[in-house]
Amino acid sequence: MENILLYLSYDGTGYSGFQIQENAPTVQAALERALQIIYKQPVRITGAGRTDAGVHALGQAATYKAPFAIERRNLPSAINTLLPSDIVVTGAEAVDSHFHVRYDARRKIYSYTIDRAPQPQVLKRLYSWHLPDRLDLKMMSHAAALFEGTHDFKLFQVSGSGVIDTKRSLFRVKLENKKREQLLFITFEGSGFLYRMVRLITGSPVRVGLGKLDLAAIDEALKGKDAFAAGPTAPAAGLCLEKIFYD
Amino acid sequence: MENILLYLSYDGTGYSGFQIQENAPTVQAALERALQIIYKQPVRITGAGRTDAGVHALGQAATYKAPFAIERRNLPSAINTLLPSDIVVTGAEAVDSHFHVRYDARRKIYSYTIDRAPQPQVLKRLYSWHLPDRLDLKMMSHAAALFEGTHDFKLFQVSGSGVIDTKRSLFRVKLENKKREQLLFITFEGSGFLYRMVRLITGSPVRVGLGKLDLAAIDEALKGKDAFAAGPTAPAAGLCLEKIFYD
Repeated sequence: MENILLYLSYDGTGYSGFQIQENAPTVQAALERALQIIYKQPVRITGAGRTDAGVHALGQAATYKAPFAIERRNLPSAINTLLPSDIVVTGAEAVDSHFHVRYDARRKIYSYTIDRAPQPQVLKRLYSWHLPDRLDLKMMSHAAALFEGTHDFKLFQVSGSGVIDTKRSLFRVKLENKKREQLLFITFEGSGFLYRMVRLITGSPVRVGLGKLDLAAIDEALKGKDAFAAGPTAPAAGLCLEKIFYD
Repeated sequence: MENILLYLSYDGTGYSGFQIQENAPTVQAALERALQIIYKQPVRITGAGRTDAGVHALGQAATYKAPFAIERRNLPSAINTLLPSDIVVTGAEAVDSHFHVRYDARRKIYSYTIDRAPQPQVLKRLYSWHLPDRLDLKMMSHAAALFEGTHDFKLFQVSGSGVIDTKRSLFRVKLENKKREQLLFITFEGSGFLYRMVRLITGSPVRVGLGKLDLAAIDEALKGKDAFAAGPTAPAAGLCLEKIFYD
């Protein structure tokens, strides 16, 4: 059976996250339903990352073993006609049978969008965190940079997730302020991310920007000492899984 | 009674247009419901333009006679807390009692967004027309430019609208191709617009871009001679009322 890698984008607004669960709409369930129609048998997919309820993706990835071959050029359109319009397959390729969509991921990029307009920008409301308060962007940049490098992010995850090794490497945490659009983007690039890590990290520089947290507290939190500096968890709507890199 | 001018933005996806109608959700009805709560009596608003079902607005305007005065700086936030999240008041000011929000409008800007990605860009799907076909942008620009100036747009309206004078002036019809974003914007700036005029005009340059219509046919249509060259009506989702100018 061919191992097929799909590139996926979705609007997470209407979903209880990526991963399948009972009695709740999920991206995985919608995709598996579509594939079952195409292949006329149940197809189980494996996702590269489990985005949370309300979180979006432009570059999610997922694999499945195809019961039979379908012309890959036509595969995205064939699946998309069977998917709701808030999930779109953007590409498909055949990969080695040993390829693992989660373990073989080398880098991931997430973006977080903050809407700084006095009143919410209505067409951005599903894809941003509305935060009209004055922010010290210079201090926020300093705060964001503290997260770059290899750290034990144990305080920047939802506790009780069961992960043992909580060391992760962030290659880049960068602020980009688009003044004309009144949007502030934070880009996170790293080898891997813990559960809710991006949303918890986002909360800390925001508190620094608001003047409610100092940089030293983040330093302590990254040494695992000061849980107070972590978070709060930024709203799901602002988060987007932008891209996953493989070798 | 003070004459209050509101600036409004909304996501038209969930509405049967701006103007109030029975048994259908409209922007006007939602706004009047919110104002009735604030002023504790029915308040009738007048909109600057009647956007159609599914059409968006970033710069709609509407006026009403305020039964009593409210601090204007707080008015947008006060109304927004009573509105659904897909309608946002972005500003409020007191205007002369003779000011008329529709007749005193000098210029309006509409934008039309075309998504040119091979598969739909999922976070743009509610705000664009997905058109992955190859388009001759140079020819489209020529086609768009033909609409600039003062013309009788009688073929570029929904027939039977009852408007007698169908002459309008377009100061600018401009294409902007954002290659990296795979988006094509068409901006329309004019003194006034007929019912569905922008969506009908949009259809013609698109057909030119697809190689299915020549420029001469548009010329004829603008002389009122060749109805075939007008339209088709581009989908509502791509259209946005960007801005209204007053003296």
